Amino acid sequence: MHLYHEEAIRSCVALNRTVIQKVEDGFTQLDQGNAAMPPIMSIDIPENSGEVDIKSAYIKGLDTFAIKISSGFFNNKALGLPSLSGMMLLMSSVTGLPEAILMDNGYLTDVRTAAAGAIAADYLAKPHIDTAGVIGTGLQARLQMEALYLVRPYKKLLVYGRRKEAVDTYIAEMSANLGVAVESVPTPEQLVKQSEIVVTTTPAKAPIIKTEWLHKGLHITAMGADTGTKQEIDEKIFHHADLIVCDVIKQCKQCGELHHALEHGVLSLEDSRIIELGALTSGNVPGRENDDQITLCDLTGTGVQDTAIARYALQQLKAESKGNQTN
Amino acid sequence: MHLYHEEAIRSCVALNRTVIQKVEDGFTQLDQGNAAMPPIMSIDIPENSGEVDIKSAYIKGLDTFAIKISSGFFNNKALGLPSLSGMMLLMSSVTGLPEAILMDNGYLTDVRTAAAGAIAADYLAKPHIDTAGVIGTGLQARLQMEALYLVRPYKKLLVYGRRKEAVDTYIAEMSANLGVAVESVPTPEQLVKQSEIVVTTTPAKAPIIKTEWLHKGLHITAMGADTGTKQEIDEKIFHHADLIVCDVIKQCKQCGELHHALEHGVLSLEDSRIIELGALTSGNVPGRENDDQITLCDLTGTGVQDTAIARYALQQLKAESKGNQTN
Repeated sequence: MHLYHEEAIRSCVALNRTVIQKVEDGFTQLDQGNAAMPPIMSIDIPENSGEVDIKSAYIKGLDTFAIKISSGFFNNKALGLPSLSGMMLLMSSVTGLPEAILMDNGYLTDVRTAAAGAIAADYLAKPHIDTAGVIGTGLQARLQMEALYLVRPYKKLLVYGRRKEAVDTYIAEMSANLGVAVESVPTPEQLVKQSEIVVTTTPAKAPIIKTEWLHKGLHITAMGADTGTKQEIDEKIFHHADLIVCDVIKQCKQCGELHHALEHGVLSLEDSRIIELGALTSGNVPGRENDDQITLCDLTGTGVQDTAIARYALQQLKAESKGNQTN
Repeated sequence: MHLYHEEAIRSCVALNRTVIQKVEDGFTQLDQGNAAMPPIMSIDIPENSGEVDIKSAYIKGLDTFAIKISSGFFNNKALGLPSLSGMMLLMSSVTGLPEAILMDNGYLTDVRTAAAGAIAADYLAKPHIDTAGVIGTGLQARLQMEALYLVRPYKKLLVYGRRKEAVDTYIAEMSANLGVAVESVPTPEQLVKQSEIVVTTTPAKAPIIKTEWLHKGLHITAMGADTGTKQEIDEKIFHHADLIVCDVIKQCKQCGELHHALEHGVLSLEDSRIIELGALTSGNVPGRENDDQITLCDLTGTGVQDTAIARYALQQLKAESKGNQTN
């Protein structure tokens, strides 16, 4: 049993096409009934504005699976600590014994979350994208747009954030990273109207994106909501979407954007427009079929993503250590 | 973040009255509504006859809580590995960050499980016990009877097991450990009829203890069943018990002996005889009231036990390391 630290993990696992493919394979296995994925386990600690979530999934035939522990403690900033963190255990599915502890402090979660966004865009966005837009200026606002660029190399990136300083930093960093024009827009309305794909990455508790701003060909990925109280997009948008893709319907029903749409009676679970991301990756459902459709993806984060990336990380870490030994 | 290994943990945590009291406090907190304990998370891996369970509980006001991962892989013997294993993570309930990893290989689970048996006996068995009986000859058959001896120092221990060799080893070890007479009986019937308290510790999938063998004053603790398919006692026994104590009713309903009694319609969940162990430890329900009552305790294992023992273990490990430093 090996324990790996964040630095080693970061040096081995980058956000690239391989990682996206690994995560995509996880969704496909889930769709094909080859994954055992229990409901998320949550421990709420309201006294400390904290929550710990545990996710896991076993993919049939694979010799390891991940147990991922992630935490959000929103008083941590005052203590000089990050609000979000996490670690992954890689367990043997042959013996039940731990194979590795990945003390990634949430890095692998960040990467696999961005990978899911790229997968969604790859099946749901128009084939050619000139302008992409992001709402939020945090870590996922960076990683989502980096991942998106790998599958849809857009020419211009629009960003909307509430704090000017954060927007300026975002623009400086992302234009250097991607080598494309990154520009701020003063309102989410302008961002949505001018973008062909929009990714929302905020912890908003009231809808930011309004139905009136939708336009032909738009794809939206909403990845911020992961509790029943968070919401980034107006629930009426579900009414206008041609395809509604959830990472996992059961989860989105409880803690994603879908939750609000169902609660407000905008649609029912029987609606044939609602499918899972795995139905796209496995080829069961075609995804976007023309440049006019409006598509929507609701991401809450799944255990199959964790198993996919933890397995990949361990493989890379082992290869790295082998490489070092032979040097 | 510290990682501790089994040897260090074993040297710091013994099955004693302190541990029993810590676990008892956990049940009391649960009863008083001071614990957040999510449902057990289970990952089944039937291809390898394996299952991984995750338990957790946060007790209000405490600065840490445990996430316990335990595994049972029943092909492991062929690989020269133990079937059961486990580890505990001790998480900060202030920051959500891991404080310690206890690589106890299931040792702490073994101890806290035995502690729960002692707590049950302390509230449910007659005040003075001459003869105790155990069904099974494995590790829990040892630990349960060691823990019981701390609260009910019995004079004679009867054991029933199917394999003579295992029974002989059990007798040799336990008579040396406890300094009491340990004798085998040829049938479970004789064991139950001659004992004032019986503890069942097997993975049986069909009832071993029959209703006809019950007698006044008997207390039974059944701790083997932890899935819906396991059963150690005839469900009709529930009909004859004066008090039916579950560690957690919700869990026993799904995977304990209670499950079978409910399924067979022997009793309903509204039955006032059914209470939780915490109701005894908190003093809300008096427990055994006379020497004639027949009492029953159904144990499935809970997250509050894990948090209680993991916290105690870390405290002991830290004290030990401090002691070593000053030497």
